[in-house]
Amino acid sequence: MTSSRTTDQRRQDALYRLGHDVDAWVATTDTDTGAPRLTPLSFLWHDDALLFATPAAGPTGRNLASNPSVQVGVGLTRDVVLVQATVDVLPAVSDELGDAFALKTGFDPRTLSTAYLYFRLTPRTIQVWREEEELADRWVMRDGEWR
Amino acid sequence: MTSSRTTDQRRQDALYRLGHDVDAWVATTDTDTGAPRLTPLSFLWHDDALLFATPAAGPTGRNLASNPSVQVGVGLTRDVVLVQATVDVLPAVSDELGDAFALKTGFDPRTLSTAYLYFRLTPRTIQVWREEEELADRWVMRDGEWR
Repeated sequence: MTSSRTTDQRRQDALYRLGHDVDAWVATTDTDTGAPRLTPLSFLWHDDALLFATPAAGPTGRNLASNPSVQVGVGLTRDVVLVQATVDVLPAVSDELGDAFALKTGFDPRTLSTAYLYFRLTPRTIQVWREEEELADRWVMRDGEWR
Repeated sequence: MTSSRTTDQRRQDALYRLGHDVDAWVATTDTDTGAPRLTPLSFLWHDDALLFATPAAGPTGRNLASNPSVQVGVGLTRDVVLVQATVDVLPAVSDELGDAFALKTGFDPRTLSTAYLYFRLTPRTIQVWREEEELADRWVMRDGEWR
């Protein structure tokens, strides 16, 4: 059983993670399509900011240069599974599936007063890599087909 | 020293992660502003798809219901630091800063033939949490000010 950290402790923890973690998830919006793009990038915490470098001509570079705001998530091991998926909204699920979801995730939206929706994300592409040397051959699924 | 995994091994590893990991980073695009949104959500891998649940009236729920495509990153510990930041493009950096970046991240864009840009992301809000009980008090920075 964990207990909630104070704001002061969380600030210290955040600064530690920003100072010591190597990778972050960077979410941008594609300037041409409006589609979300998620990229794990290495960063340096310097002068109270995160410093990234990415190819100028690549999509994430172009997005970063034109997005006024981005979101960055820290909490990554160097062991990436990146999924691009299509979305189906499920207004309800079977009892069996709802039970499986609650057992796995530890929360059961069916019991909450807030209205939840379930979303089914079907992978179209899956990329898997750890370090630089694995980048070249990272697609294990394309167009919904496992390779 | 690690060696590159085969596609077969990566597929097995991806399926293991999808089957056993609890949380994923979900990147969506805000339907009203076009801004990227990054949210860590618990999921269930079921029938070859990821199943998420999130409040119908929340921004991620609205986005998922209207985005034709989303991206999902797996590789999260339940120890989140989520940063919303403004972006500055840095066409170049000082030698000292370039060295620090290379030392920290293990790659040095200055030495590569591909044209890289550096990007400086200055946090405006930072949220920090581990489990459910920490969600209520998760902001350690708002409007660029540490709380």
